[in-house]
Amino acid sequence: MKMTKIAIVGATGMVGRAFLQVLEEKKMPNCEYVLFSSARSAGSEIIFMGKKYIVQELTETSFDEGFDIALFSAGGGTSAKFAPIAAEKGCVVIDNSSQWRMDESVPLVVPEVNPQDIEWNKGIIANPNCSTIQAVVALAPLHKKYGIKRIIYSTYQAVSGSGVEGVRDLERTAKGEAPQKYPHPIYNNCLPHIDVFLDTGYTKEEQKMIDETHKILGDKTIGVTATTVRVPILNSHSESINVELATEFEIDDIKELLKNSDGITLYDDIENNIYPLATVASGSDSTFVGRIRRDFSRPNTLNMWVVADNIRKGAATNAVQIAELLINSKGNG
Amino acid sequence: MKMTKIAIVGATGMVGRAFLQVLEEKKMPNCEYVLFSSARSAGSEIIFMGKKYIVQELTETSFDEGFDIALFSAGGGTSAKFAPIAAEKGCVVIDNSSQWRMDESVPLVVPEVNPQDIEWNKGIIANPNCSTIQAVVALAPLHKKYGIKRIIYSTYQAVSGSGVEGVRDLERTAKGEAPQKYPHPIYNNCLPHIDVFLDTGYTKEEQKMIDETHKILGDKTIGVTATTVRVPILNSHSESINVELATEFEIDDIKELLKNSDGITLYDDIENNIYPLATVASGSDSTFVGRIRRDFSRPNTLNMWVVADNIRKGAATNAVQIAELLINSKGNG
Repeated sequence: MKMTKIAIVGATGMVGRAFLQVLEEKKMPNCEYVLFSSARSAGSEIIFMGKKYIVQELTETSFDEGFDIALFSAGGGTSAKFAPIAAEKGCVVIDNSSQWRMDESVPLVVPEVNPQDIEWNKGIIANPNCSTIQAVVALAPLHKKYGIKRIIYSTYQAVSGSGVEGVRDLERTAKGEAPQKYPHPIYNNCLPHIDVFLDTGYTKEEQKMIDETHKILGDKTIGVTATTVRVPILNSHSESINVELATEFEIDDIKELLKNSDGITLYDDIENNIYPLATVASGSDSTFVGRIRRDFSRPNTLNMWVVADNIRKGAATNAVQIAELLINSKGNG
Repeated sequence: MKMTKIAIVGATGMVGRAFLQVLEEKKMPNCEYVLFSSARSAGSEIIFMGKKYIVQELTETSFDEGFDIALFSAGGGTSAKFAPIAAEKGCVVIDNSSQWRMDESVPLVVPEVNPQDIEWNKGIIANPNCSTIQAVVALAPLHKKYGIKRIIYSTYQAVSGSGVEGVRDLERTAKGEAPQKYPHPIYNNCLPHIDVFLDTGYTKEEQKMIDETHKILGDKTIGVTATTVRVPILNSHSESINVELATEFEIDDIKELLKNSDGITLYDDIENNIYPLATVASGSDSTFVGRIRRDFSRPNTLNMWVVADNIRKGAATNAVQIAELLINSKGNG
């Protein structure tokens, strides 16, 4: 059986490390790996799958070696430059940056939701924004069965979503030091400001949630709005989601549907104080859904609370799942 | 001029201490004070207005002394028992517990919103829930000018809302100790669980926001839903509020209206990273409103971010403002 040759680009970053951890856990057969980083981190040694890897500097000739798949998490600039080079050489790039997500020639994929979209890739597949991935995992079954008319997101996002510097800013500002990553101390604050502001008054993070929800669910007619907020917790994003469906439902049917949907852990037993929590989701690949209840303020509407590990399902796990889909589709082809 | 005799009930608790601080700042003329607590804390000495006060035990005869006003923050049980006793003796109780809020014979008052409701008090005036107060301060001007059709609340509530034990639980669980106040560690978590669960699947805190919004705005036809969440910050509640208005608006007019409304600090200059923050609101009596922007997913709808000090405007300041209204209305009567 042919080996699958996989490049890990940005191997020393927070998501890059998570790529390695998820790959170690998945133990995909017949894969070989080369780890890349910028010149600054190149030469680092990383123990991966019980072997010592020397991280290589990413250059314009890196993909000459004939890779099948590249997992990119090295920022939008690196993706903009190197993903087309890799694709040109026949490699399929799974890109965790926002660079290619809204490009109409690039599929934006959550394997539980739109796995079929990998088929029309032209060498780049985009991994969605962390806060969008967990939301659409929970929403897709509802959209399929009932149709979704409108979604209102309010998020509670962990500092790990900003990488190591986000985590350091929480530590720094807890000690009374000035922030370096965020414009204000994240300690003792909820910052309603993730990514840059746009002319509309929305942040880019909010606009990502709106646009990516449309693209992944394949339906631009859904009304979507979002308020995205950074909160002083280390890992896993929580989301308060209000969903208006197109048709009538019973709450028990919604719970049953989600319980039986791929990638979801129904975590909704309020009598025993069971509802999704960041500390429960952290380290898991599942999207936890709970606090499911009817919104009595409008017909066919409900509230729910959705939590997932933003570094795993929100980034690394989703990307590795896409890699698995690619490998399996090749194997079957 | 006649002295106004004021009882502070629950003087040693977190809100009770805030009553004293706000009263010291306001320096209301011609007032005298007696401080009460449960037997457990009675006998404590408190320096207030530069004088030493010995905290008295609250008993059934405490109000025999002829009080004009009593500020209660000693829990629902104490309010249930002692507020009617005080009212019977001619004292007007301003009660910070949830005990009387939805009683139809008791006004529920936010001075910037429905000051006229103090006039029909029968000896008890209820102070609303902290998360509701700041919300209606921001919403009332919109309701008056445009009419509100629907409100969707998602809250980010500080641990001080649970009193000293909430603050201690954040400290405890940050050190890896087991929680004593909350069912789960609040450190590194957002808990979608404030107060007890009801049969509807909502928490009592969520139901309070729904019911109290109706009562204070004086309009039960407004659709209201809420998801209330405890976050690991010390003080000041933040709220993501989605508001559907009954008529068309311009965002600039909304900002101008809120800027000129009592009790509101418009804090909305995203180009300079200015938006409401818990650390900005803490210590202030104002309700900070920002991130005001059109919700493009439905006509006549907007999103905003509202932050206030839950111990001051959310409890003590609001109660003292009601006391001022009472004193001024007596002075004019």
